[in-house]
Amino acid sequence: MNDVHEIAGVPMRWVGPLRISGNVATTETEVPLATYESPLWPSVGRGAKISRQTERGIVATLVDERMTRSVLLEAEDAPTAYAATRWLDMHFEDLAKVVRTCSRFAELVGIRHEITANLLFIRFEFSTGDASGHNMATLAADALLSHLLHNIAGVSYGSISGNYCTDKKATAINGILGRGKNVVTELLVPRAVVTDMLHTTAAKIAELNVRKNLIGTLLAGGIRSANSHYANMLLAFYLATGQDAANIVEGSQGVTVAEDREGDLYFSCTLPNLIVGTVGNGKGLDFVEANLTRLGCRAEREPGENARRLAVIAAATVLCGELSTLAALTNPGELMRAHLHLERENNVSHSGAA
Amino acid sequence: MNDVHEIAGVPMRWVGPLRISGNVATTETEVPLATYESPLWPSVGRGAKISRQTERGIVATLVDERMTRSVLLEAEDAPTAYAATRWLDMHFEDLAKVVRTCSRFAELVGIRHEITANLLFIRFEFSTGDASGHNMATLAADALLSHLLHNIAGVSYGSISGNYCTDKKATAINGILGRGKNVVTELLVPRAVVTDMLHTTAAKIAELNVRKNLIGTLLAGGIRSANSHYANMLLAFYLATGQDAANIVEGSQGVTVAEDREGDLYFSCTLPNLIVGTVGNGKGLDFVEANLTRLGCRAEREPGENARRLAVIAAATVLCGELSTLAALTNPGELMRAHLHLERENNVSHSGAA
Amino acid sequence: MNDVHEIAGVPMRWVGPLRISGNVATTETEVPLATYESPLWPSVGRGAKISRQTERGIVATLVDERMTRSVLLEAEDAPTAYAATRWLDMHFEDLAKVVRTCSRFAELVGIRHEITANLLFIRFEFSTGDASGHNMATLAADALLSHLLHNIAGVSYGSISGNYCTDKKATAINGILGRGKNVVTELLVPRAVVTDMLHTTAAKIAELNVRKNLIGTLLAGGIRSANSHYANMLLAFYLATGQDAANIVEGSQGVTVAEDREGDLYFSCTLPNLIVGTVGNGKGLDFVEANLTRLGCRAEREPGENARRLAVIAAATVLCGELSTLAALTNPGELMRAHLHLERENNVSHSGAA
Amino acid sequence: MNDVHEIAGVPMRWVGPLRISGNVATTETEVPLATYESPLWPSVGRGAKISRQTERGIVATLVDERMTRSVLLEAEDAPTAYAATRWLDMHFEDLAKVVRTCSRFAELVGIRHEITANLLFIRFEFSTGDASGHNMATLAADALLSHLLHNIAGVSYGSISGNYCTDKKATAINGILGRGKNVVTELLVPRAVVTDMLHTTAAKIAELNVRKNLIGTLLAGGIRSANSHYANMLLAFYLATGQDAANIVEGSQGVTVAEDREGDLYFSCTLPNLIVGTVGNGKGLDFVEANLTRLGCRAEREPGENARRLAVIAAATVLCGELSTLAALTNPGELMRAHLHLERENNVSHSGAA
Repeated sequence: MNDVHEIAGVPMRWVGPLRISGNVATTETEVPLATYESPLWPSVGRGAKISRQTERGIVATLVDERMTRSVLLEAEDAPTAYAATRWLDMHFEDLAKVVRTCSRFAELVGIRHEITANLLFIRFEFSTGDASGHNMATLAADALLSHLLHNIAGVSYGSISGNYCTDKKATAINGILGRGKNVVTELLVPRAVVTDMLHTTAAKIAELNVRKNLIGTLLAGGIRSANSHYANMLLAFYLATGQDAANIVEGSQGVTVAEDREGDLYFSCTLPNLIVGTVGNGKGLDFVEANLTRLGCRAEREPGENARRLAVIAAATVLCGELSTLAALTNPGELMRAHLHLERENNVSHSGAA
Repeated sequence: MNDVHEIAGVPMRWVGPLRISGNVATTETEVPLATYESPLWPSVGRGAKISRQTERGIVATLVDERMTRSVLLEAEDAPTAYAATRWLDMHFEDLAKVVRTCSRFAELVGIRHEITANLLFIRFEFSTGDASGHNMATLAADALLSHLLHNIAGVSYGSISGNYCTDKKATAINGILGRGKNVVTELLVPRAVVTDMLHTTAAKIAELNVRKNLIGTLLAGGIRSANSHYANMLLAFYLATGQDAANIVEGSQGVTVAEDREGDLYFSCTLPNLIVGTVGNGKGLDFVEANLTRLGCRAEREPGENARRLAVIAAATVLCGELSTLAALTNPGELMRAHLHLERENNVSHSGAA
Repeated sequence: MNDVHEIAGVPMRWVGPLRISGNVATTETEVPLATYESPLWPSVGRGAKISRQTERGIVATLVDERMTRSVLLEAEDAPTAYAATRWLDMHFEDLAKVVRTCSRFAELVGIRHEITANLLFIRFEFSTGDASGHNMATLAADALLSHLLHNIAGVSYGSISGNYCTDKKATAINGILGRGKNVVTELLVPRAVVTDMLHTTAAKIAELNVRKNLIGTLLAGGIRSANSHYANMLLAFYLATGQDAANIVEGSQGVTVAEDREGDLYFSCTLPNLIVGTVGNGKGLDFVEANLTRLGCRAEREPGENARRLAVIAAATVLCGELSTLAALTNPGELMRAHLHLERENNVSHSGAA
Repeated sequence: MNDVHEIAGVPMRWVGPLRISGNVATTETEVPLATYESPLWPSVGRGAKISRQTERGIVATLVDERMTRSVLLEAEDAPTAYAATRWLDMHFEDLAKVVRTCSRFAELVGIRHEITANLLFIRFEFSTGDASGHNMATLAADALLSHLLHNIAGVSYGSISGNYCTDKKATAINGILGRGKNVVTELLVPRAVVTDMLHTTAAKIAELNVRKNLIGTLLAGGIRSANSHYANMLLAFYLATGQDAANIVEGSQGVTVAEDREGDLYFSCTLPNLIVGTVGNGKGLDFVEANLTRLGCRAEREPGENARRLAVIAAATVLCGELSTLAALTNPGELMRAHLHLERENNVSHSGAA
């Protein structure tokens, strides 16, 4: 394998601006979306335009953040595993110190454990500054694991990752215990805007959301995934900002809520598993640096602030695309027509630009 | 929004070659992987090298293929919805004709339906030639939906997509009923190769697979996702070949099986939801065309043959990365050391190449 | 172990009558409920009373019925497993004949299969007359398994049950592919009845249903279980009618839908996994025979008719209890007061009657 | 509805004795099982006999206990919901005091919360002495809810139960966060006993467990349910001891682990959701009192000790039945023959005894 690599050039456009407020950032910003699916651009663009029709725009509330890694220990038997958990519960501070030796930015913020037979799964939770924290968490977990193996009797190495983290698989644990940033976005769309720009009604969107996103996914045997297409927006945003885009797997799990409030539309997307960072792998590429800078996520701030800003922008972008698609779905034929029209158009521009 | 877009340049390398046999293709081919996570390249590379130590290489068996779209109808009540399902069961041939009018390549191959309250979810299944088929399926579903609304009394439009498809959300239905290509890959690794190239034993990998991939994911509340990191390989492969990479969400759902067969390692990855195509969105980009051509997936063949070839190559790539990672995880510290080493190296080459 | 056994005497009351119509039965019948949780009786009783305020009562639509058993075969490898599935797809009629030799009542109605690695899971679906069919299905699957082992090369016995059935575990497959009776119940409650007898509004119940049953269960990581407490009603009904009450596990999976229709309440419970029978284990006990007879489920009818009647009565009973509880939950404090009051009362009657 | 009720007489037998040790109880005790499925008795009986072939018998480790109730609050918006969670995190002690005013036995031991849109789900965790604690938890949650509504601005009543508890529905949250007793049982069966009494090998059982319980359930779309039939044993045990047997729904979720340890069989059942008590509803019935007394669960002990003893006996009973069935399944035809034989026998005894 040589050191030179080629480039897969994914078409990218800036869309917006989106208007955003909330406990992390009050801003108006365009967002870069890299995708092979060109209809995504105008779809998010429509949502962004709607956000600008309201005073506060999309209110994005960051309610939690942590990165996780689970290690697996094999104990001699369940009583030994149980003794180990009691040891863990008593030595949190010691373990927090171990973590601090690994990294300037990683901080242990929680530990959960579960025993099955003689197996002990331990899920470490860290704050990781501006990094999404995959590697920082693995490095810290590695040190913690060594510490445990030296200090707890009757346990041996199982795995540095026990799938109880959970990375890049859709599970319930990430939403329940937290992994990545947990961001709730809300937008109150006035009735006139629903009518004029979305060509539908709040009641229709609310009804569709219950039937498609909640009941439809439930019947399909989904797991914490009541939405239409969060994965599309996240993929495009992650690629454009140098994220590990395989994390759209857990990112795809989130809940859309829509309510008819006397004709106005209350629309909300909750994304409990947003894995994003502004430093680390992928962030050194020139276009990524440029994009992060333009998004205002490379400013001099307290560690973590840039990443939180990126998270709420990502979440607001998801809301824009979700709103636009759900509105289109309330009108028979609209989605199909939009796709056919846009792809015809974009195939032209593709061949010109690619 | 102007017609010109920028490019998000994702670093890409060719890895391999992989040795593949089975009911679709017997070949030895390198594969392109576009990713920000550089350790993926040597990881897949190691798996590929192992595949070449065996005569048949990775045996990839394609066992099913279909693209789906679910529509949602609102019926007056459940008896009306039930009457509609009986109508559907009696008119399959008529509906197949409707589909043929939409597309040269789409063919209706199955219908499933489920009633909840007065809601009727209908999941149409199509063969779609060499396309992954998202748009073809939506176009056909649109025509079918119009046909149903004209021919069945007491039902009205609910949605062109009812999340019972299911696209880009992790659910159980895709694995149970099929969506995309379903490919089983198998590799029998001789004991000596396990020792020399993976530095572990078949027994250790088998045990880890049960504890991490099966039990660990189960405890995390996963859904049909007993593997370590299929999503990583799929993302990189999908980006490099112009796929809609948001489909790694359902692609991440699959099952790794590992067995100790008298010291030899039986290793298998089943990927029931591989959504890939060789024509359609994204395939017109120059580098994508070049990559597909180099993979032998742009040859003159029967419709569908190129896409099936692409699917088994994708699946074999997943096996390579999965095997390499699981082997590394059996050795305390190996994964961490590999990551640290590689990222240091690659950061250099990144800054040189990007 | 001696031949004599004792009796666990579970308190039982008849509640109702419920008014029921639909494609199986038009009837008004009381229902027996055996439970240690006495508040269940007045709760179902209230729902029953409401059913009688409407002309058609609870409309129960049976949309499917089948009993299943999955067998597990080990194949030499995936290609062999795949060949086996093609054999299966071509020999349905032969297999149906095998089943007919096992039982007068069992009839093969469907086969589904799934391959993972070299493992082949085959899910046989049967109609089983008036029996719930556990044993009939196992007996038939046993014969089918022998037939397969004799006729397909390269496969060997894995298990007579592969958990892909799925019996007494909550899974997605039973709802998606069917197991037991699938019954949809609907009740349109006039606004005045909602006000006077449920002390709430249709809008409040609809909103609560979305938030608690759909969103709440989703966040908890539930699987096809959007309801409040189907399991309570099913347990009591199953015990009183001699069913295998462990099947409440899959019975607990179902979906409640509530809509505000201009002040009237549309209320529906879909129970896709009702496992009931009127003959077989447990049905020979004196009180069970008496109960089934009083329910009109021991009449001279075509095979299957009695069991279908029992299924729709069970489903209607579930609706009564679900409606009553959801209504109570819309009023702060009501549920708590009702429980405290009833348990005090019933403790008295218990000590008198037990 | 009159005050007198009838009795549903479920056939009950005492089986065993089982040999049990561990951190709760060291005992040898028979167990009462009430069921319509007579093959359950000899199946559990065989497991019990095996437990007595080993010195320590079944080692049952209780690793956690708590009862839960989730309440649902509607906040004005997500920022208000988030402020409420911060209030909760700061006022644990105040809330613990509120609980103490409700009950002598209830003690608040944990709080978890999750925000979706403007909805706030709060899961309260309690220790509840010897009661299973459904009503105690609801009573305490009711008081807590009132307290919250008085002390937190901008939130209003949603529901006293938000399905995030989760009661009688299969979800992931109960296993991950805990609900009921969490008991791990282990039994090391010597090779000779595996051969002579189970007529199989440790390797065969271990292999079957992976394929059926882990892979089979996973493919079926199960949720934390890697076992063969925990629900059967729990139902029979719960009915015989006056439990709310609808809790077998979450009880059915647990994990069987089997390993071949040089010919000996390591066999373990982890039951994270055992909801049992020795006081409360159903416990006043004469036969229940007698059964609990005979089980040694009505002794003068510290509050909670009797319930914990009952829990480990329940869990050990589950292991006995699970082991026996899995062993039988490794031998083609054995299960079928056993069922046919036993039901013939028992039909006779039924007609005599019922």
